[in-house]
Amino acid sequence: MRYEDAGVNLDAAEETTRRIKEALAPVRHPGVIAGVGAFAGAFDAGRLAELERPVLLASTDGVGTKTLVAARVGRWRGLGADLVNHGIDDLLAAGGRPLFFLDYLAAARLEPAVAFEVVAGLAEAAAAADLAVLGGETAEMPGVYREGALDLAGTIVGYAERARLPDPARVRPGDVLVALPSSGLHTNGYSLARRALAELDWEAPREDLGGRSVADALLEPHRSYLPEWRRLERAGLLPKTAAHITGGGVYGNLPRALPAGLGARLERGRWPEPPIFDLIRRRGGVEAREMFRVFNMGLGMLLVYDPDAAEAALEVLEEGRRAGVVVRGEGVSVEGVDG
Amino acid sequence: MRYEDAGVNLDAAEETTRRIKEALAPVRHPGVIAGVGAFAGAFDAGRLAELERPVLLASTDGVGTKTLVAARVGRWRGLGADLVNHGIDDLLAAGGRPLFFLDYLAAARLEPAVAFEVVAGLAEAAAAADLAVLGGETAEMPGVYREGALDLAGTIVGYAERARLPDPARVRPGDVLVALPSSGLHTNGYSLARRALAELDWEAPREDLGGRSVADALLEPHRSYLPEWRRLERAGLLPKTAAHITGGGVYGNLPRALPAGLGARLERGRWPEPPIFDLIRRRGGVEAREMFRVFNMGLGMLLVYDPDAAEAALEVLEEGRRAGVVVRGEGVSVEGVDG
Repeated sequence: MRYEDAGVNLDAAEETTRRIKEALAPVRHPGVIAGVGAFAGAFDAGRLAELERPVLLASTDGVGTKTLVAARVGRWRGLGADLVNHGIDDLLAAGGRPLFFLDYLAAARLEPAVAFEVVAGLAEAAAAADLAVLGGETAEMPGVYREGALDLAGTIVGYAERARLPDPARVRPGDVLVALPSSGLHTNGYSLARRALAELDWEAPREDLGGRSVADALLEPHRSYLPEWRRLERAGLLPKTAAHITGGGVYGNLPRALPAGLGARLERGRWPEPPIFDLIRRRGGVEAREMFRVFNMGLGMLLVYDPDAAEAALEVLEEGRRAGVVVRGEGVSVEGVDG
Repeated sequence: MRYEDAGVNLDAAEETTRRIKEALAPVRHPGVIAGVGAFAGAFDAGRLAELERPVLLASTDGVGTKTLVAARVGRWRGLGADLVNHGIDDLLAAGGRPLFFLDYLAAARLEPAVAFEVVAGLAEAAAAADLAVLGGETAEMPGVYREGALDLAGTIVGYAERARLPDPARVRPGDVLVALPSSGLHTNGYSLARRALAELDWEAPREDLGGRSVADALLEPHRSYLPEWRRLERAGLLPKTAAHITGGGVYGNLPRALPAGLGARLERGRWPEPPIFDLIRRRGGVEAREMFRVFNMGLGMLLVYDPDAAEAALEVLEEGRRAGVVVRGEGVSVEGVDG
């Protein structure tokens, strides 16, 4: 018996490794001392030595069943950007700046061409954020994964000065919630979306999606808010706290940016909702409150400011919207949804 | 339609989250500023400010189909230690010391009790290494995973002083390879092992396994070499380079610790081989060379020393063995296997 007899194709695995290195080759980052292929990647952390009280931040996330949308239409390039940008936005909400990233790609059998597309997209998104791809792992596990499906997860590591970490204790009633608009579902709610839209033609252009197809709208990559964040930082206008709106929607995520005893009221209509959400609602017969519990509904990130700073931030941001206010009493409500 | 109609059980997911927090509660690490539940975990990196040229090291790994062995006998506790210790050993081989860890646990449906066992084992192994568990992600994806199977991956982050990173250029012909013995398969070769042993009773004690069962032997956790490493460090006897023997065996991993132009000759018989390997060989009819290509064969880690330092290291180590030597010419050979 040989290893190959156990369902492992070592030639294909080698080809996958070769294609992944090819996908990463154009984006060598100057901070990388040892990268893919080493027992552990090594990254020059010199800039941490310049901080007074350096803090490391890290977050692990996956792209969920967005991979099944990619599989249905055979378009894999955007998933890497989804993964990287989700991580960047988590890091920003926690007060960090990106340093490096590691990915995990697993399937029953990994097609080398699919691995290349995913990692090439990941490398492009990382390069756009000056984020190093420090390593990763691929695994083929026929007994664990369904044929044709794959899972993609990753870990971002960043840093911050301790005194500049966001502090919910500074949030006051009357503070303003500034929304950074999402591009679509980002990386959450795909199980419900796929089910609601299952019967439609995903490749046909649709008027109710502004001429785009269901697949286009569903695969729209998770937006990175790093460019907006850099504008705020240059202007000295970083928020008191921020919430990245992912699984659980505004109800699940906004409270993480607020202190005990305070809540928020969002005023629906003040920010754009990408039309894919209304299509899901109609086709799936999904109640409005359920939509806000599962999806970001156009709210990619919510930033908390006192009213004057909010005005100034809205001047600086390319696409910020005033979306609501902080109120006394815990809990998040959406006007027009929760009454 | 509600989210639950798409096959997602939010009550079970909440229960899983609650059990995971319960599993992590006993091991709060003083370095953690914000942990599980934050947008990103935050870790006090003060000790990096004391280094002259701080380097961050990171590695992502999975435990492969060892999860299917755990599933067959319903014993999940060891998988977390497998994951953490695999990461620690990768970090040590790369010259780093552990700081923190993040895990990724995904399945079609996550049983809260299974998630608790896995994370409790992970927390114990992390605590033993003074490693913080900074965060993690769980995901339920019925369309991606097979029913009853789960995947477990994780990322370790550590640090090093740049001038003390291992340097293959210092390795010379005649240098000695010191082996740290493995406890069994660690986290590699399970597809072949499960196939070779599929017909056996996995729960019955066996004489050829020293009275242990197949399940006992297969689930033996990946060893952490951190205690041995600390002994070496206290004695000023860290190796020139080291190789963590994982997928690909000695042929695939030892060359990563050697410079171009040098190879290694291992002398079989100089280190103990856990008896599970011979059982796999006999039941699967696996050639000796294939065994060394797929499994660690008792060699958990190989450390490279000049001959005098090797003697001194063997005095300090609890279980080190002299396993072979560095030779001119590339490639790894095992005496008694490769002639």
